[in-house]
Amino acid sequence: MARFDVLGIGNAIVDVLARVEDGFLSRHDMRKGGMALIDADAAASIYAAMPPGIESSGGSAANTCAVAAGMGARVAYLGKVADDELGTVFRHDITAAGVAFPSAPLVGGAPTARCLVLVTPDGQRTMNTFLGACTSFGPGDVDPALVAEADVLYLEGYLFDPPAAQAAFQRAAAAAHAAGRRVALSLSDAFCVDRHRAAFRDLVRGAVDILFANETEITSLYEANSFEAAMEAARGDVGLAALTRSEAGSVIVQGTETIVVAAAPCAVVDTTGAGDAYAAGFLAGLAAGSGLAVCGKLGSLAAAEVIGRVGARPEKALRGLVAAPSPGA
Amino acid sequence: MARFDVLGIGNAIVDVLARVEDGFLSRHDMRKGGMALIDADAAASIYAAMPPGIESSGGSAANTCAVAAGMGARVAYLGKVADDELGTVFRHDITAAGVAFPSAPLVGGAPTARCLVLVTPDGQRTMNTFLGACTSFGPGDVDPALVAEADVLYLEGYLFDPPAAQAAFQRAAAAAHAAGRRVALSLSDAFCVDRHRAAFRDLVRGAVDILFANETEITSLYEANSFEAAMEAARGDVGLAALTRSEAGSVIVQGTETIVVAAAPCAVVDTTGAGDAYAAGFLAGLAAGSGLAVCGKLGSLAAAEVIGRVGARPEKALRGLVAAPSPGA
Repeated sequence: MARFDVLGIGNAIVDVLARVEDGFLSRHDMRKGGMALIDADAAASIYAAMPPGIESSGGSAANTCAVAAGMGARVAYLGKVADDELGTVFRHDITAAGVAFPSAPLVGGAPTARCLVLVTPDGQRTMNTFLGACTSFGPGDVDPALVAEADVLYLEGYLFDPPAAQAAFQRAAAAAHAAGRRVALSLSDAFCVDRHRAAFRDLVRGAVDILFANETEITSLYEANSFEAAMEAARGDVGLAALTRSEAGSVIVQGTETIVVAAAPCAVVDTTGAGDAYAAGFLAGLAAGSGLAVCGKLGSLAAAEVIGRVGARPEKALRGLVAAPSPGA
Repeated sequence: MARFDVLGIGNAIVDVLARVEDGFLSRHDMRKGGMALIDADAAASIYAAMPPGIESSGGSAANTCAVAAGMGARVAYLGKVADDELGTVFRHDITAAGVAFPSAPLVGGAPTARCLVLVTPDGQRTMNTFLGACTSFGPGDVDPALVAEADVLYLEGYLFDPPAAQAAFQRAAAAAHAAGRRVALSLSDAFCVDRHRAAFRDLVRGAVDILFANETEITSLYEANSFEAAMEAARGDVGLAALTRSEAGSVIVQGTETIVVAAAPCAVVDTTGAGDAYAAGFLAGLAAGSGLAVCGKLGSLAAAEVIGRVGARPEKALRGLVAAPSPGA
């Protein structure tokens, strides 16, 4: 048996969340629902213009890891924080969520990454990320022995933004396959797909065993005219894909099989982390030996939990949602 | 006309909030509902044991200032943060709330103060404060000219914990009275009253014009057997007192007058900052020229707003609650 069910790798980020009216986004030329990369100066000027906020650990794969651990999966995470106060916050929160976090902090370099998250009255989040210390995460931060100890290596598409992390991503994927493990990828964001489409297409065809994407990401990846066309392209490229469609739920494709899963009902307070939580529920289900329909349902339940509150991680561990696998399952 | 309606002085603190079961408090010898002062080592060890949290600007008087500004009052605040990341967060949040914050940060000393807030399932908060940079706030940080420009000087009882701040407190109160302004005091916490009872009794009798306290604080101050006995003692000592009683609302006493105000209905999610918000609503009402019954009602409404969510400050400005004073009021 592997030591971990999931090993996540991603940009280690602390979120700064504030509620704004839609006008704030247009005044600052922000694309609603997207993630923009910003430099230190832009981070300072957007922060100065933001209303009072709250700080909460984030990072796409880190959110997935924290939520999956709360659902009972055995999880580790790799990512780069600095040895500063926000880095301490990030380390505390992911460790307290039950995730092993062996990455050493960056000393004497850029500060811990932060994402300025603007939540509009419709519950949509618009993100502005200053990558800081994450840009120093590279292949040397990936221990192939650790990768070999996890059933699923989970990688976020955002890792393709800092160049050194791309190389780390490739090294980790190769180590996982060498050990007979599966590689999962989340496409992260439609604009991120735009930035790295060719590389992602190659990856999905070659190195990825499990693909997570939402409707805009998967149609962007294949430059498809419809969700159905993109879904069929994914079916041809990857062994297992879980494609989310907001309030329309999700569709899971594996070979010739297609499973449609309903969204769990919830009040939309803040969609920050919804996709991350879906992947967490799905992976926790896989770890517990559940069938794909149950995995999808667990994803929907976890997503509903974080959509119903401010921030990307639930207040409580969701352990009770995942049943122990039945004997022989 | 004064430049500010309210000038608050207090310990400038960032809260770290997490939900725990009651057993967490007993395992760590914490008194539920109270505030304990802790050193850096205890802060590290309690933080290590805490579940994942969120960070949100706090500090009793600072909360009052932020909420009062959100209700339309003209507010300034003095308090000491360090030149670190949490200090930047504190400064951003209070400034973004519309509060003038002229205090220079501490350079090269202790870090910004933090309060580890444990919220139990009943919505009660139990606080553990590491004062950090606040211990360096002293008389030199109080500009008498600024004090003279505010109608009401608002001081938190917690200021009596760091010794240099006591002296700052006295200097500020003297400057306010020399300029013909009023001095308001919040007793902050029953254990804080225990630590400084004699000094608080002298202050309330001599230097305080407006007193804010909850039931346990006022009965502790006078070592009284009943709320009524404590209320009568306060009536004899101070010109105006607003005494809160949780779900029983509040009682305002001024000379022979006694006004009973109902609590505003709300779901109890987290009582962090409820007393601070009551004082904010009350002071915003005074600033708008409202009568005492309306001031009390505004206090109840502001308190209900923060009790219904996690953290000490409301997500939205509460400007709409306060009507402009009628001509001649």
